Amino acid sequence: MAVISLTTDFGTGDFEVGVLKGVIWKIAPQVKITDLSHEIGPQNVLEGALLLGRCTPYFPEDSLHVVVVDPGVGTKRRVITARCGPQYFVGPDNGLVTLMLERAEQNGWPVKIVSADQPKFWLPNISNVFHGRDIFSPLAAHIANGVPLSQIGTPIDDPVRLEIPQPQRTESGWKAQVMNTDHFGNLATNLRVEHLDGMDDLIVRIKDVTIRGLSQTFGEQPSGSLVALINSEGFLEIAEVNGSAAHHLNAITHDLVEVLHNN
Amino acid sequence: MAVISLTTDFGTGDFEVGVLKGVIWKIAPQVKITDLSHEIGPQNVLEGALLLGRCTPYFPEDSLHVVVVDPGVGTKRRVITARCGPQYFVGPDNGLVTLMLERAEQNGWPVKIVSADQPKFWLPNISNVFHGRDIFSPLAAHIANGVPLSQIGTPIDDPVRLEIPQPQRTESGWKAQVMNTDHFGNLATNLRVEHLDGMDDLIVRIKDVTIRGLSQTFGEQPSGSLVALINSEGFLEIAEVNGSAAHHLNAITHDLVEVLHNN
Amino acid sequence: MAVISLTTDFGTGDFEVGVLKGVIWKIAPQVKITDLSHEIGPQNVLEGALLLGRCTPYFPEDSLHVVVVDPGVGTKRRVITARCGPQYFVGPDNGLVTLMLERAEQNGWPVKIVSADQPKFWLPNISNVFHGRDIFSPLAAHIANGVPLSQIGTPIDDPVRLEIPQPQRTESGWKAQVMNTDHFGNLATNLRVEHLDGMDDLIVRIKDVTIRGLSQTFGEQPSGSLVALINSEGFLEIAEVNGSAAHHLNAITHDLVEVLHNN
Repeated sequence: MAVISLTTDFGTGDFEVGVLKGVIWKIAPQVKITDLSHEIGPQNVLEGALLLGRCTPYFPEDSLHVVVVDPGVGTKRRVITARCGPQYFVGPDNGLVTLMLERAEQNGWPVKIVSADQPKFWLPNISNVFHGRDIFSPLAAHIANGVPLSQIGTPIDDPVRLEIPQPQRTESGWKAQVMNTDHFGNLATNLRVEHLDGMDDLIVRIKDVTIRGLSQTFGEQPSGSLVALINSEGFLEIAEVNGSAAHHLNAITHDLVEVLHNN
Repeated sequence: MAVISLTTDFGTGDFEVGVLKGVIWKIAPQVKITDLSHEIGPQNVLEGALLLGRCTPYFPEDSLHVVVVDPGVGTKRRVITARCGPQYFVGPDNGLVTLMLERAEQNGWPVKIVSADQPKFWLPNISNVFHGRDIFSPLAAHIANGVPLSQIGTPIDDPVRLEIPQPQRTESGWKAQVMNTDHFGNLATNLRVEHLDGMDDLIVRIKDVTIRGLSQTFGEQPSGSLVALINSEGFLEIAEVNGSAAHHLNAITHDLVEVLHNN
Repeated sequence: MAVISLTTDFGTGDFEVGVLKGVIWKIAPQVKITDLSHEIGPQNVLEGALLLGRCTPYFPEDSLHVVVVDPGVGTKRRVITARCGPQYFVGPDNGLVTLMLERAEQNGWPVKIVSADQPKFWLPNISNVFHGRDIFSPLAAHIANGVPLSQIGTPIDDPVRLEIPQPQRTESGWKAQVMNTDHFGNLATNLRVEHLDGMDDLIVRIKDVTIRGLSQTFGEQPSGSLVALINSEGFLEIAEVNGSAAHHLNAITHDLVEVLHNN
């Protein structure tokens, strides 16, 4: 296993993240462990799934991603481990794996998902409230040590999948929405550059503000101006040059963004 | 040395944490270094000791934990390195090691503590304000390289120990207190599940709010309800389902929590 | 390569930092990666340069530092890789490397800087907005794999350098400024201990507050008092014992600090 990544809603100030790492290294001392983010909004499964979907394409083959955003911990929700092409997922069966699965399916990669129901690969005592420590981390470490998924649990083909909001065609363009507000206050939408084919002269509307045309870079407009541009993953994004579009517009995730032909 | 962990009150935005790692790797390039938390409250030694006590049981044998919560830096307080059974501590002699020591003693593990008074294992220049860099990190690296504690310093048997607040028996149950408020706003108390033996039907009171009975999981009650449950380490905890009990109750560390027979 | 460090203004909650690591490990799976800080103020190049200058002296030879504070991303600003004595820098040519360069020059170490203009060491697709991922990280990984700078790009000798504010001599002492406000609210100035030679009896003035003399440690004055002391890097610093001088004084970076003979 090249590397095990951790993504949680635990924050970085408490004991949980350290414990996840300790548990993994106790079983698999050789692995590299890295953090993706521990600042997923509490219980925000969609945010966790999106972040995982954005990071994993850049990770090496044979990476394993543990994700702990788990409002149903201790209830009957399943724990799953999934092989999505060259990478692995371990976490609750609540949709966190959605984008890793979609990418594997779009690429025609082999997918194998098991309900991790074999307690011999868990810690001996299982709490009702911290399966990240008691189940997910030991599973990740055992997989890193070479235990095959077939021993970890029972194959399933009905993992929970999230509905990822899609942009809607309108008469004059697209209705999209803000999917992510980042540290800079940039607002990434769910509208891809491909959706804009043929819209050479466009305007973007958000919160009664109109932005004309797409910018190529942050640096080409004056400080404080709102710009629309294609972000590093190919999505339409609204940004304020050297500032925060989120703050400027008082905008949040799921806010409406319209793209229209300019005429 | 399997891994060196770092716990500080430095935050993650400044230069100190990076410097601690650089110093260690300069002396012991082979070691793994991990962060437990750098968000211990400024100078909050009790919080640091508790976090360390919560994490270390899950770490591999031969781990070494450097803790820098050090209001007395540059004064005559000692620097200690302690072997607590299979793991090591390096830091100021201000009580941070308390729970690691207690656990070793309860398990009958060998304990060895030295006052780290041998400057040849420190950096050449010692500031008055950053012993984490100048003393603790080099000590950790040298121990990782195999230097025995007997060379690091002089044995002592009187390390500073914190008094950890204990719950008090009352006529009708227990008086406990909030020991930790986490990222979710969950309020962990100092009352253990063992204290509740025989209290099958109980109520929990905090800040004029009464909670009846214990829940098994976060997921079994409606969003927004306050629940009492046993947390992943066996302590009574008060939580709001999909919310923050700390915010809901305006509660902080050391607030009173009473547990009573329900009759 | 002993270790690759990452410093950015991305924060730790988004996808970017994880992606930088994934990209590096995909090309150079053997390297250690560590974070210096991801909390550099957005687009604050001076803050990034200062933090880098504070950390790198403590890092092992053969370390490589990737810094992504890059308001000019996608414009014509160059990407540089620099060998500053035993360590390497990769990032935008906007002055981030200034203090690493100065230190190498002061020590008479070999310096080599190239404009990284050879796309074969970048990712195949280059966005206009995330060169950290598309250019800097792959460059770092290839250098870690042994690719010499001469293959990475074209030698240059005119890297952008920041003007680092210097203290000014006055009739009665020095005019300095706050250069950094840390997590504790300590205010580090740009006045070095050497500047204070011969000023045995001095007073420090900031924001209409006067502090008499230098303290040796935080612990020697009562809680809540403002003290001036020499910090761990040899600069004059103003602190509140067990508190925040920044908060106490409502002080920020670049605020004036005067040091005067006390007579």
